[in-house]
Amino acid sequence: MSAETDRSADSQPNFARVRQLMREECLDAVVVGPGAGFHHLLGLRGNLTERLLCLVVTDDSEAIVVPRLQAPLYRHLRTETIVWDEHEEPTGLLCSFLRKHDVRSVGVNREFWAGFLIKMQEQAPKISFKAALSLELARMIKSPQEIEALTRASHRIDAVWCQFLKDNPVFTGKTELELRGAIGNLMQNAGFSPIAWIDIGAGENGASSLHHGSEYRLRPGDPVVCDFAGALDGWYADICRVASAGAPEQGYLDAYSVLLEAQEAAFQSIQPGVVASAPDEAARAILANAGFGDAFTHRVGHGIGLDAHEEPYLMKGSNLRLAVGMVMSAEPGIYLPGRWGMRVEDIVAQTTEGPLRLNRAPRAIAIQG
Amino acid sequence: MSAETDRSADSQPNFARVRQLMREECLDAVVVGPGAGFHHLLGLRGNLTERLLCLVVTDDSEAIVVPRLQAPLYRHLRTETIVWDEHEEPTGLLCSFLRKHDVRSVGVNREFWAGFLIKMQEQAPKISFKAALSLELARMIKSPQEIEALTRASHRIDAVWCQFLKDNPVFTGKTELELRGAIGNLMQNAGFSPIAWIDIGAGENGASSLHHGSEYRLRPGDPVVCDFAGALDGWYADICRVASAGAPEQGYLDAYSVLLEAQEAAFQSIQPGVVASAPDEAARAILANAGFGDAFTHRVGHGIGLDAHEEPYLMKGSNLRLAVGMVMSAEPGIYLPGRWGMRVEDIVAQTTEGPLRLNRAPRAIAIQG
Repeated sequence: MSAETDRSADSQPNFARVRQLMREECLDAVVVGPGAGFHHLLGLRGNLTERLLCLVVTDDSEAIVVPRLQAPLYRHLRTETIVWDEHEEPTGLLCSFLRKHDVRSVGVNREFWAGFLIKMQEQAPKISFKAALSLELARMIKSPQEIEALTRASHRIDAVWCQFLKDNPVFTGKTELELRGAIGNLMQNAGFSPIAWIDIGAGENGASSLHHGSEYRLRPGDPVVCDFAGALDGWYADICRVASAGAPEQGYLDAYSVLLEAQEAAFQSIQPGVVASAPDEAARAILANAGFGDAFTHRVGHGIGLDAHEEPYLMKGSNLRLAVGMVMSAEPGIYLPGRWGMRVEDIVAQTTEGPLRLNRAPRAIAIQG
Repeated sequence: MSAETDRSADSQPNFARVRQLMREECLDAVVVGPGAGFHHLLGLRGNLTERLLCLVVTDDSEAIVVPRLQAPLYRHLRTETIVWDEHEEPTGLLCSFLRKHDVRSVGVNREFWAGFLIKMQEQAPKISFKAALSLELARMIKSPQEIEALTRASHRIDAVWCQFLKDNPVFTGKTELELRGAIGNLMQNAGFSPIAWIDIGAGENGASSLHHGSEYRLRPGDPVVCDFAGALDGWYADICRVASAGAPEQGYLDAYSVLLEAQEAAFQSIQPGVVASAPDEAARAILANAGFGDAFTHRVGHGIGLDAHEEPYLMKGSNLRLAVGMVMSAEPGIYLPGRWGMRVEDIVAQTTEGPLRLNRAPRAIAIQG
């Protein structure tokens, strides 16, 4: 048994935008398994498991393929419903539907399981399967209501960070996992579900940008990188801040000033019409200039919405144009293996008045005991 | 940023069993993205995101494809490491590796993202991609240490259930989401990470076997189906019990007796050498005999381990043979739309002495206030 449905839909879904993007990608249909695209179209997150659940949209029809035990969750939808029993082969039923509607090219969502796709390719060798970028692009421009929901989630995660600092005035002697647990409890009580990740890296563990947390016990002067994310009513918040167990060394403080400058440069570059590589380039130039070029090992940001990571990705090589309504992170970092790491992240909305930070928690290093 | 690594590996991975199963499936290689198979082979869960991370095993080589920012997490491995930068095309690097090793047929794990697979199919049209069942089969027989870890997780989730009942003597007037939150906090404090799901269905919501929880407020006599699961140190626990707000109607109590009988029959059928469809058939016969044949809408069980659902699946049509060391759920249910639902689930290990329940929380309906 498994469930991750976040909210039920009162209204019927609107497939017009997806159909338009589908045509632009020369697709006759899209198949959308559980994930942000499914959530976006149906108002339900869906259960991503070994039981095939998906929405299929063709030019003139829609259907949902659903295991019998989940069917009650979707009975409010007016789409055709293809219910399958445990011993049946649901990919076969889906392929029959596609053939019946004379579909030749199908886009699938990126997270669709390869196991299902391969079965469908075997069962319908005349249909060509492609990655449907349209499903991500359809979510890229957020409505004012969606930006409101993302703002609420960002403010809520800010409050978690501030409460965490208040509850834990002394970091020295605590383990990374203890700090992680404290943030986890606060996120859970603040209503985040699911919690997407909590990465806590102290001292030299901070140099690994995805350090999950360990039994390492903080020593005086240790900086600690705290990155955590989760969904509030389906909409993701994501923040990264640095704290420390007592004052960190001067070299760290100096580097952090450069990092803040790089983040501000990325932030200021988020302007309508600008290519999505520009904020990355702006932050990278400042870090490189200070000698940290090789120490910034990842893109500067990612879009956020019903998924924690989605278009637009702010990275070298992207020529997608930023536009009003897009929401994305700005999060440069510096990682010196064997020494320390740092990253600072805010979520930023592109507005008609320029970029707007949705997070308002102080960006300064939080110097705890 | 994202991380879900559960534990770090001290020892180097052993690929012998996977290679053997790979050959039986006529595969030259397997590609294993984040998930239980990855965890099993590398001792790390891995981050399943839009950044390609995977292990590739050929007949005489192994490599890990890893984004630069995650590379520090895998530096202890002695496999070849293919590190890629954000602006690179990692599937292209992976295809080059496959071609270099003269690979013609590749198995991928079921959860591998379709987005990556489709790119690889375009980049390496001469390679055929298949679903690698071997990755699941390789984990099916648990070692004594693994069964110990699963037992620990089961006992821990039993303790969560018992504490939940103790902390909440009165259910009447509480909402499903309040009950869900209480279980969530207990699971988090008990060390479960991730929490896989918490499904709470009261009254007629219980008839939807995957009801996530809502603002529905419990009324006297309402039964409530509680199904929750999560990983403890990487190993999954999964339980389902029924409680009620005061005594439920006599019809419910009578049906529950039948359900317990059906679960016992499934449990007793878990014998070495028996086909995996037998426990399902045993439970189904009892339910059908009592008039609940159509009301049992799902398979009777699933394997469990580093994944919450894995082989063996106890269902009609499976001819896989049960064997000592397998661990699986036994969870029949009865769902009457518009009225109520019920399910009871234990995790069962196949031992040389027959089936053994790893859960020991009482199976009787917990009648609360």
